[in-house]
Amino acid sequence: KILNKSLQRTCSRQFSTIPDILKQNNYLQKRHIGSEQTAEEMLKLLGCKNIDDLIHQTIPSHIYDNTALEYNGSKIPDEPKTEQETIQHLYELSEKNKSYKNFIGNGFYGTHTPPVILRNFFENPGWYTAYTPYQAEISQGRLESLLNYQTLVMDLTGLPVANASLLDESSAAAEVVNLAHGASGSKRTKFFISKDCFPSTISLVQTRARFLNVEVVVGDHKTYDFAANEEQLCGVLLQTPDNEGILHDFTQIFSSFKDPKKIIKAVASDLLALTISKAPGEMGADVVVGTSQRLGVPMGYGGPAAGFLAAKDDLKRKLPGRIIGVSKDAQGNPALRMALQTREQHIKREKATSNICTAQALLANMSAMYCIYHGPKGVRDIAKRVNGFAQVLHSLLKEIGYQVKGNGNQLFDTVAISVPGKASEIVALFEKHEINIRKQNEDLISVSFDETHNLEDVQRLVEIFSAYIKVNTSAKHIADLHLEQRIADLDGNVKRTKLDYMTQQVFNHYHSETEMMRYMHRLQTKDISLVHSMIPLGSCTMKLNAASQLIPVSFRGFSKIHPFTPLNQVEGYTQMLNNLKEWLKAVTKFDDVSLQPNSGATGEYAGLLVIRQYLESIGQGHRNVCLIPTSAHGTNPASAIVAGLNFQPVGVVNGFVDLKSLKEQAEKYKDNLACLMITYPSTSGIYEETIKEMIDVIHHYGGQVYMDGANMNAQSGFTSPGFLGADVCHLNLHKTFAIPHGGGGPGMGPIGVKKHLAPFLPNNPNINVSQSNTAISSAPFGSASILPISYSYFMQLAKEGVKKSTAFAILNANYLRKRVQGHYQILYENEIKYCAHEFIIDCRPFKEYDIKEVDIAKRLMDFGFHAPTISFPVAGTMMVEPTESESKEELDRFAEALIKIRQEIQMVIDGKYSKTDNPIKNAPHTHSVLLKSEWNHPYTREEAAYPLPWVKSQGKYWPPVSRIDDPYGDRNFICSLNGFC
Amino acid sequence: KILNKSLQRTCSRQFSTIPDILKQNNYLQKRHIGSEQTAEEMLKLLGCKNIDDLIHQTIPSHIYDNTALEYNGSKIPDEPKTEQETIQHLYELSEKNKSYKNFIGNGFYGTHTPPVILRNFFENPGWYTAYTPYQAEISQGRLESLLNYQTLVMDLTGLPVANASLLDESSAAAEVVNLAHGASGSKRTKFFISKDCFPSTISLVQTRARFLNVEVVVGDHKTYDFAANEEQLCGVLLQTPDNEGILHDFTQIFSSFKDPKKIIKAVASDLLALTISKAPGEMGADVVVGTSQRLGVPMGYGGPAAGFLAAKDDLKRKLPGRIIGVSKDAQGNPALRMALQTREQHIKREKATSNICTAQALLANMSAMYCIYHGPKGVRDIAKRVNGFAQVLHSLLKEIGYQVKGNGNQLFDTVAISVPGKASEIVALFEKHEINIRKQNEDLISVSFDETHNLEDVQRLVEIFSAYIKVNTSAKHIADLHLEQRIADLDGNVKRTKLDYMTQQVFNHYHSETEMMRYMHRLQTKDISLVHSMIPLGSCTMKLNAASQLIPVSFRGFSKIHPFTPLNQVEGYTQMLNNLKEWLKAVTKFDDVSLQPNSGATGEYAGLLVIRQYLESIGQGHRNVCLIPTSAHGTNPASAIVAGLNFQPVGVVNGFVDLKSLKEQAEKYKDNLACLMITYPSTSGIYEETIKEMIDVIHHYGGQVYMDGANMNAQSGFTSPGFLGADVCHLNLHKTFAIPHGGGGPGMGPIGVKKHLAPFLPNNPNINVSQSNTAISSAPFGSASILPISYSYFMQLAKEGVKKSTAFAILNANYLRKRVQGHYQILYENEIKYCAHEFIIDCRPFKEYDIKEVDIAKRLMDFGFHAPTISFPVAGTMMVEPTESESKEELDRFAEALIKIRQEIQMVIDGKYSKTDNPIKNAPHTHSVLLKSEWNHPYTREEAAYPLPWVKSQGKYWPPVSRIDDPYGDRNFICSLNGFC
Repeated sequence: KILNKSLQRTCSRQFSTIPDILKQNNYLQKRHIGSEQTAEEMLKLLGCKNIDDLIHQTIPSHIYDNTALEYNGSKIPDEPKTEQETIQHLYELSEKNKSYKNFIGNGFYGTHTPPVILRNFFENPGWYTAYTPYQAEISQGRLESLLNYQTLVMDLTGLPVANASLLDESSAAAEVVNLAHGASGSKRTKFFISKDCFPSTISLVQTRARFLNVEVVVGDHKTYDFAANEEQLCGVLLQTPDNEGILHDFTQIFSSFKDPKKIIKAVASDLLALTISKAPGEMGADVVVGTSQRLGVPMGYGGPAAGFLAAKDDLKRKLPGRIIGVSKDAQGNPALRMALQTREQHIKREKATSNICTAQALLANMSAMYCIYHGPKGVRDIAKRVNGFAQVLHSLLKEIGYQVKGNGNQLFDTVAISVPGKASEIVALFEKHEINIRKQNEDLISVSFDETHNLEDVQRLVEIFSAYIKVNTSAKHIADLHLEQRIADLDGNVKRTKLDYMTQQVFNHYHSETEMMRYMHRLQTKDISLVHSMIPLGSCTMKLNAASQLIPVSFRGFSKIHPFTPLNQVEGYTQMLNNLKEWLKAVTKFDDVSLQPNSGATGEYAGLLVIRQYLESIGQGHRNVCLIPTSAHGTNPASAIVAGLNFQPVGVVNGFVDLKSLKEQAEKYKDNLACLMITYPSTSGIYEETIKEMIDVIHHYGGQVYMDGANMNAQSGFTSPGFLGADVCHLNLHKTFAIPHGGGGPGMGPIGVKKHLAPFLPNNPNINVSQSNTAISSAPFGSASILPISYSYFMQLAKEGVKKSTAFAILNANYLRKRVQGHYQILYENEIKYCAHEFIIDCRPFKEYDIKEVDIAKRLMDFGFHAPTISFPVAGTMMVEPTESESKEELDRFAEALIKIRQEIQMVIDGKYSKTDNPIKNAPHTHSVLLKSEWNHPYTREEAAYPLPWVKSQGKYWPPVSRIDDPYGDRNFICSLNGFC
Repeated sequence: KILNKSLQRTCSRQFSTIPDILKQNNYLQKRHIGSEQTAEEMLKLLGCKNIDDLIHQTIPSHIYDNTALEYNGSKIPDEPKTEQETIQHLYELSEKNKSYKNFIGNGFYGTHTPPVILRNFFENPGWYTAYTPYQAEISQGRLESLLNYQTLVMDLTGLPVANASLLDESSAAAEVVNLAHGASGSKRTKFFISKDCFPSTISLVQTRARFLNVEVVVGDHKTYDFAANEEQLCGVLLQTPDNEGILHDFTQIFSSFKDPKKIIKAVASDLLALTISKAPGEMGADVVVGTSQRLGVPMGYGGPAAGFLAAKDDLKRKLPGRIIGVSKDAQGNPALRMALQTREQHIKREKATSNICTAQALLANMSAMYCIYHGPKGVRDIAKRVNGFAQVLHSLLKEIGYQVKGNGNQLFDTVAISVPGKASEIVALFEKHEINIRKQNEDLISVSFDETHNLEDVQRLVEIFSAYIKVNTSAKHIADLHLEQRIADLDGNVKRTKLDYMTQQVFNHYHSETEMMRYMHRLQTKDISLVHSMIPLGSCTMKLNAASQLIPVSFRGFSKIHPFTPLNQVEGYTQMLNNLKEWLKAVTKFDDVSLQPNSGATGEYAGLLVIRQYLESIGQGHRNVCLIPTSAHGTNPASAIVAGLNFQPVGVVNGFVDLKSLKEQAEKYKDNLACLMITYPSTSGIYEETIKEMIDVIHHYGGQVYMDGANMNAQSGFTSPGFLGADVCHLNLHKTFAIPHGGGGPGMGPIGVKKHLAPFLPNNPNINVSQSNTAISSAPFGSASILPISYSYFMQLAKEGVKKSTAFAILNANYLRKRVQGHYQILYENEIKYCAHEFIIDCRPFKEYDIKEVDIAKRLMDFGFHAPTISFPVAGTMMVEPTESESKEELDRFAEALIKIRQEIQMVIDGKYSKTDNPIKNAPHTHSVLLKSEWNHPYTREEAAYPLPWVKSQGKYWPPVSRIDDPYGDRNFICSLNGFC
């Protein structure tokens, strides 16, 4: 301020050439990559001169893009920021979001995350870095928590089955369309949805129905002639409390159907409301959907939070998503695992009825913990308080002359007010007072309460409402309140009479912070997460989730924002999302990006819808064939089905997608070819030379190319979907760009598209974000609050780091492959010299000795390792992906474990161990089994527990249960705490 | 804003009588207390009608204060705030502290805490809720980390022994006075300290020396005639880099002494500087002191951070504080524990040479983790950068005409500038630019760099300095920088030549975030902390450390503030500290409070100095006898000795302090009686009826009464030191007021005093906080950054909660006592009907069967429990304090464990187990021992591992080592990683 400008300028210029030692050095880049220090040694083993040499020998030259990470003005930052600079930058962005008082409601509500849960669960990598619980024996902690979640959902909805969460409320509602459509065959083609459902719910239902050729009727359930339309209806979806806050009893409608089995009767509801209002299960609902966000999960400008879906028992084999079920382990003790997996899309492929793959495990568990901490009475008290505020406001507004909707004792948390022609004016008035209420339309506003509100807030609202209509005399009026007289019991027909929910011990026990902390810790210690050891999951990319990336997620300026906040109040989010979009454009070389899809599979679905809409727009709407290689991830065909496409296989030979087969199929379906879905590098971990040619073929026949971004971490910095010629792709931010897996969600699956597809990106009925009339998630930007993680990743790694991550992922994979070569057969090792970022170990040769890949997976648990991906993309194999974040030492440990197991297999082959009694078949070994006095196995206890010396010295991880019997649990289906110890 | 005032007022008034259900309910109070829901059942077992009944039967009526928690206008809040309100309030306070750029230095420096350490270590209750590692077998994780710390201190200082941290730099320096005084006997009474030491260091040395009758000479080491004074000198303390930033080589001075063994040659230094500058050990220093704050620990407005002390080998048995040493376990494997405990004050009492009891374990470990993460080269690069900035600034300021001190290549991080008569003006100018530099005196300012600075900061400084002296021509001058030429190698005689520090594997391995996270996790899982189970430590009060209390400690507005920031910039801290003082006054019924002491023992020392100064002020300076009951905690006599007092015992009969003995001693020493130190309730867990009478006796004989606040948690809300008549007391905020124990520190020991003592509370030479010229800690408010924890405790619990905490602590203790009564002999059970907050189990009856209290402690580990306090206050016993935070279920589990052990003891008594081979003597059992194929013990493996069913079902904790051989390690003393696996 004192200094003259010229001096300042000169200094700056001069300082730009500064000695290295004076430069900041706290860069995440050098912390993110685990094997940089040992690269030389590793490359030597591979016979490469340096890492560039490896890359050039691995990535085909015509695939290699010298201008990667820059596209059309968008580019990844050239210079990295330090950890502290990045955190500071994100903090400043977060503080740019205005923290007005929020009464918007509409499916998102303020909530208090109990600090003990925030710190010990949400901010704890022991929870958030865990993988999806496919390996049940080392996932008992989070499985138990998800069982708690299912139980509370079942109890509150009054239905006997619930899944372990879906992506959000609206997408859960959309799944009802599939359920209804599937249940009715194609005979019934109408789906009724109440106009009083939330706008997002209606929009997603319409979007989902559109390409399934289901006609959506949006109507008033009170006047709609269900009887007259019954034979055409495959399903109905009603909401209570509804969009205007009114609670309903749908018993009469549901019981009016002549042939009720043929109609899916669904209700969208609110778990907090259900603690005091009538359970839809009691009304005769088949399905209940909603979100558990307001149970302890911050709004986060839209997410992530857990959607839920509960159903009648006879639907259990048709439900989308995961269901956690009780079974038993090899000792006969109760143990948990995902139930009914045979129904899942990744097994059934062509018979899939949903493409749901991930869940919102972390957030479902957070809500479960919230309910455990508060207990049934505590949650009910919160509901009563929220309801009390609504009733008080309703009563007061009525008194001072407003036209309020409904009766006071039929509301839950929302007061809707008729203000013909004045809605904008009133909402603006409140905004001036730093309060957001909801404008439903120009004639209707509403105010929704949540547990963060207090009576002063009600007072403030009343004051502003009074002043608006100049009720000066109301001073005395309001002063004479008699609040207790303004709160009535809920109306008899919407009131919950049975309060017998959450009666299980877990919900009535951990109400002190000490007990809660210990309970969460006890569950955590049962599981393997990235804090223990590498999780080498092929195709799932369990890389580092850095603390500096996660810290901003907790910033109040990010976590406490309602997704439908007016854009002028969320400058920080807007800037963050725009920058992130730019970076994703640079990474993909695409022209536009939608941040809306909440998972990879949702991204696929969104991408296919974009293609379908585009084809319609150019008069090619009849094109409905989607080609998919047989090696594709199961979500591909499932997404195609959900998008109403007819998928056809493309052959795969020796791991390579067969160009010949592709040409034949494209030719065969040329008139109806809509698109190709293809993963690159392929799911076999191979950079196919022919990818560009394949894309050309599809374009030649009038199709579009959808690239599955699951393996984007092997492209970033070296090539891109746009460069290769694809039209659209999704990005798994939770794989490639550092968002943690959360023990089975959240995920984020933004899609990038070429220019011609941009107009068809998903929109949102509350906040306009595109030109289309489709929607994929409840919120316009999906799970916005976790996007700072990927944002931070780009900012901290910058161009060099993004590129390096890819290079070291390839190095680590090839090093590990080399280490186990000779001990195991590696698939396609004759076809390629170097693999991409993952490779496949063939376990089929051991089958005749009764050793399967799953046995090796279980034996790895005794070493403290999570297994690689099992039986994908090839049955009888394991796919290994170490990621760039692992160190050589960790890779060596994993290789040693595999080699040791191979030696044990040899002992079976050589007859030194029997096929039925050996350390592999008996794995995993619990301490409980090992400490029994009797020990009649051909190996020692120590050989069982410490197959290698470092298993002991590194701190032994103990699997909490023995091998779990999957079929037993499916035969004796239990998905609630009732029936589990 | 729109509304008229009258309406607003009326509303507020009306809303004050609101129905319960509309009130907020997120109060910590109901979460903090663990047994409220089960109180009725527990009281029934005790034969009490209700909790008031229990309290009235326990606390003598004349002790009971009906007006507790209010005093003279100070009072604990009547109404609690919710968790969210409290966090929000503290956030707002923190944001009131201005975050100016800081270049103050003077012993405190900015630092970047690596986010991976912040999240996974500092914000992780698995680390911060652990207790002091007295039970070594279940503390191997933090012991290993402390060994890392000692090793890096030893390496950098060039000395072969280091302790596991002290409270801060200045108090470490003060310990040198005791060492020197002790080493010389009383013959040499002069202690030389360089005037170029930090002001706090000088002040604490002077304070410490004053009452030990050691004369402190503050002089210029370059001119002082050491030869002429040698025979009077017991020690010297010099500093490098010194107060003006200059590095020194003291070799010549240290080698000049004729009889060097008789002088303690000590150096205060800076660990970061030592990575590039000459090690004091090489100069011939006997002792090196300093702080490791700048190694990753936020300044926190003064603390906490770890002080360190390294020494020559022949001093190892005389060092203050804890030393972690290597020994072996029962299997012969290396294992860690506190070494040389026989030298510790709590054993030696009257022979104590220091009163140091706690350490700064959490912060020492944080610094160790920082060094592990950066590695030797990384830390050295940071040092070089900091040094580079100082050299560049030095060079530039010299060029534009400033009088800078020293030569550029003799500096470390600080540039001192002569500005005769202008210091205030210049410092004010910088403050206007939101930059703090240091005013040393009116003629001297200085600028200190740290790792958070960058070259833009240097530029900004130069700009302001240029502008101040109107060097407009300097624009070109500065522009012509040639920075590399301005950075020279350090001068040969101060440069470090050997870079062979931190060469051990641990410092050269965990440099990726993934590896670092796993390393910390691996250590964490070895230890028991409050996240596992109760830690029933008598006198140590391991109550809940709530997440909502801990969260604010990380707020940047609290953590990044320099302790010597001008008071006008720290409004938030000032307000927080003032409120906290008020609340502590209300709790103690005292008139003034000092927040300076960093531990309980330091509080004792501070309190005794206050008494001594007061007595001097009234012409009673000769009074030097301190009466202490024989049951007192060992720190009492130790503190008395360090304060230069002559302590005399008071007898104890059946757990009660003997009034008769007290009277006799008071009478005997009436002419010299300075004070009584007494704990209340007594260390036996008894509310003595005679406490007021005892206090009267002391006052009668002209003495003052010091109350040890260790058991304040049994007073709060029901009585107080002030009410009982004491003159001064300390409060262990880390016991009674929820600050966690950090695995062995930090602590906080503020003292409260009656009005007449207030003028003598400790001061600080940099920031004036009282009228005295004594100082107890480096910073004016001690470890200010953890005070929000206690602040939050008061705010959230409020009056009712504070009182309830005490009541439930008493209930829990009595319940547990009742549960084990009949199985064990409880001390003093005939004397009192109800104990206070803790009770004592007598293990002496088992001695003849060779079962000692320590054996029971080790067997408890097999149950997953931390042992109670062992052998205090009575040898051969265990003292149990459950605290109010534990649930009935946890108390029951602990009781069951003790009862089960009693049954095992019975089997030894009955001869069913031999005295040498039984589950108690062999405890703890590691899985490694249990899994051996051979098992020749008279009990099964399962009986060893799961003595009760819930040990397995709750998730077995496995001790990582077998019973540790303490004497072996003392005979073969190793306190460094060299010699440990």
